[in-house]
Amino acid sequence: MTLGLPGSDVLAARHARTRSALEAKGLEALIVTTPANIRYLANHIGTAGTLIITLTDIQLLVDFRYKEAVRARQDSPAACPGLRLYDVSDSYDEALVSATMASPARVIGIEAGHLTVARQEWLMRTWQSRSAGVTLRSTKRFIERFRAVKDAAEVRVLRDAAQRLTAVAGTAIESVRSGIAEREVAAVIETALRRAGYERPAFDTIVASGPNSALPHHRAGDRVLHASDLVVLDFGGVLDGYCSDLTRTVSVGNPSPEARRLHAADRDAQAAAIDAVKPGATTADVDGAARQVLIGHGLGEAFGHGTGHGLGLDVHEEPRVSKPRSDVPPERLEPGMVFTIEPGAYVAGFGGVRIEDDVLVTETGCEVLTSVPRDLRVCR
Amino acid sequence: MTLGLPGSDVLAARHARTRSALEAKGLEALIVTTPANIRYLANHIGTAGTLIITLTDIQLLVDFRYKEAVRARQDSPAACPGLRLYDVSDSYDEALVSATMASPARVIGIEAGHLTVARQEWLMRTWQSRSAGVTLRSTKRFIERFRAVKDAAEVRVLRDAAQRLTAVAGTAIESVRSGIAEREVAAVIETALRRAGYERPAFDTIVASGPNSALPHHRAGDRVLHASDLVVLDFGGVLDGYCSDLTRTVSVGNPSPEARRLHAADRDAQAAAIDAVKPGATTADVDGAARQVLIGHGLGEAFGHGTGHGLGLDVHEEPRVSKPRSDVPPERLEPGMVFTIEPGAYVAGFGGVRIEDDVLVTETGCEVLTSVPRDLRVCR
Repeated sequence: MTLGLPGSDVLAARHARTRSALEAKGLEALIVTTPANIRYLANHIGTAGTLIITLTDIQLLVDFRYKEAVRARQDSPAACPGLRLYDVSDSYDEALVSATMASPARVIGIEAGHLTVARQEWLMRTWQSRSAGVTLRSTKRFIERFRAVKDAAEVRVLRDAAQRLTAVAGTAIESVRSGIAEREVAAVIETALRRAGYERPAFDTIVASGPNSALPHHRAGDRVLHASDLVVLDFGGVLDGYCSDLTRTVSVGNPSPEARRLHAADRDAQAAAIDAVKPGATTADVDGAARQVLIGHGLGEAFGHGTGHGLGLDVHEEPRVSKPRSDVPPERLEPGMVFTIEPGAYVAGFGGVRIEDDVLVTETGCEVLTSVPRDLRVCR
Repeated sequence: MTLGLPGSDVLAARHARTRSALEAKGLEALIVTTPANIRYLANHIGTAGTLIITLTDIQLLVDFRYKEAVRARQDSPAACPGLRLYDVSDSYDEALVSATMASPARVIGIEAGHLTVARQEWLMRTWQSRSAGVTLRSTKRFIERFRAVKDAAEVRVLRDAAQRLTAVAGTAIESVRSGIAEREVAAVIETALRRAGYERPAFDTIVASGPNSALPHHRAGDRVLHASDLVVLDFGGVLDGYCSDLTRTVSVGNPSPEARRLHAADRDAQAAAIDAVKPGATTADVDGAARQVLIGHGLGEAFGHGTGHGLGLDVHEEPRVSKPRSDVPPERLEPGMVFTIEPGAYVAGFGGVRIEDDVLVTETGCEVLTSVPRDLRVCR
């Protein structure tokens, strides 16, 4: 598969930014263990791998399975500048200890949001037993912060990934009819995702019908669709590593007045949130815009999740567009951020509505990347 | 989707076992954060949730999205005995601090192989600032150890999950022909998985053709199959939460003598490993059996990964069937363990072969759960 990986110049800029941040924090190196961050810095795609970036060096630790792929990539325009390859023959953490001991860096950051307690304990014990003199420092959102603001090449891929959902949504909505099972609709959607050129679904496709539509994280089951069901269709695909994500809620046959009311309220809430997206606004402003509209319709309690999440190499990444919480402080929007806007309203036992689009923060406001009509579609 | 969740009696037995182990380790509670472990103990299926099990109590912390599903399940035969529901309105870790402070347990285990350094640091800081008097202890493989030995209900599901791969393999092999792209074969396989009743693929389907077959973790790309390619087909599905996993390597048109030689050697290696599976043998014995055969064929260097991995709620779990490594000591096999046997032989630039089946350790030896012929199939 010829992935559209960023070129060496793009990676060089990311390295420079990372190294400036290392210096600013008094760190001599960062151990990168989060797969999406490793891909972002070194174009390595895999479930395993560890990266060590110092002020002057960058080293990728991979095992047997990935060696050939890394070597081939280093002969391509997507080569990672300055990359040294470290061959992991025993465990990754043994290799990490050896590689750090061979490097002069001694004040080393870890990604505390990804590294497990067990790995940290083992590393510290082992360095200590070998008198390595290494000082570990926890870092948070070190690379994630950079990833939240997309560069031009990333925006191009994300725009393409979002646009291709139009055809998928058409096929999905056409397949909805009384008598079909949720699972069959999900299969139609996933086939349409492959046909649209995505490498894989970005997450487990959600087809939630009737009372299931009130369960925001229902997936797709054996339930057969019936007349006057609301059906939440939530799906997305991964293109060149980047995620897209769209939700539409449709009605099987004529919707009840309550269903129409929920849908109209949620649509207004989503429009208000999209209107609030611009540089300088905060994630809490955007969430608040959607939430106020739903509260105005008496649906404040019916909207229990956040308004959106960043999209990129991960399907849920920064920024989090939600109520300020103790672990998610509000964040100021910057041009280049890409995230979903997906308020929902859920009434237990009856059903729910969610409408979701992907947006890009521009210099002056917001570009909606997805393009699918938002009216309440009435299916057979 | 009506999942075949284990009944309350099965969960009660798992709780009793967990509590005995807590007592034996001098712990008053365990904070369970690993999703598959939470499902194993409480039948909760979700990407979020935290479980606290003490010697007398069990409490599930979930947010808005899951509340309805948990309540509905508690009125079913799959109810978790004694479960108290804790409603997470702010962050999971805030909720965890409140819930533990309301409990008398003070010596508390964490799952060090899952909890991140950032979460541990935040929890310790917050408990300390509130004078909670909590002592945290790292635990490893606490629940994973129990999960490695399957109970009767799990074996039934795993057997069914493995058997259904026969039809999928037939469809997959029929689709292989000169001129088709790897990605199209993967789409055929994933559609066949859905038709066979799986809830989703257990992992990204691998279709690796020609030189790509020498890359053990190639997925499925744009490469078009050609005459005399070896093609590695590696796929599996999830049934009622449990994973299956199968690999066959086929030839497009007549295989070269070198391809035949690789395939025959790998088949012999796999047979030797399956023969070595019995209670009392170790994972290193099974791995060594495959490895010796490949070394005998001069292919020791060509086999760079382990022989297999446990299958259950996770597609890679305990036991790990590999060479003894510093982080994976050999483990003694017990009746009820289920794992893959999948030696491979890879020649860079030429191609590779992998043959994989799923096996159950029985009282006297081994039952092969998958049933697909292992000869080198010659496709169009």
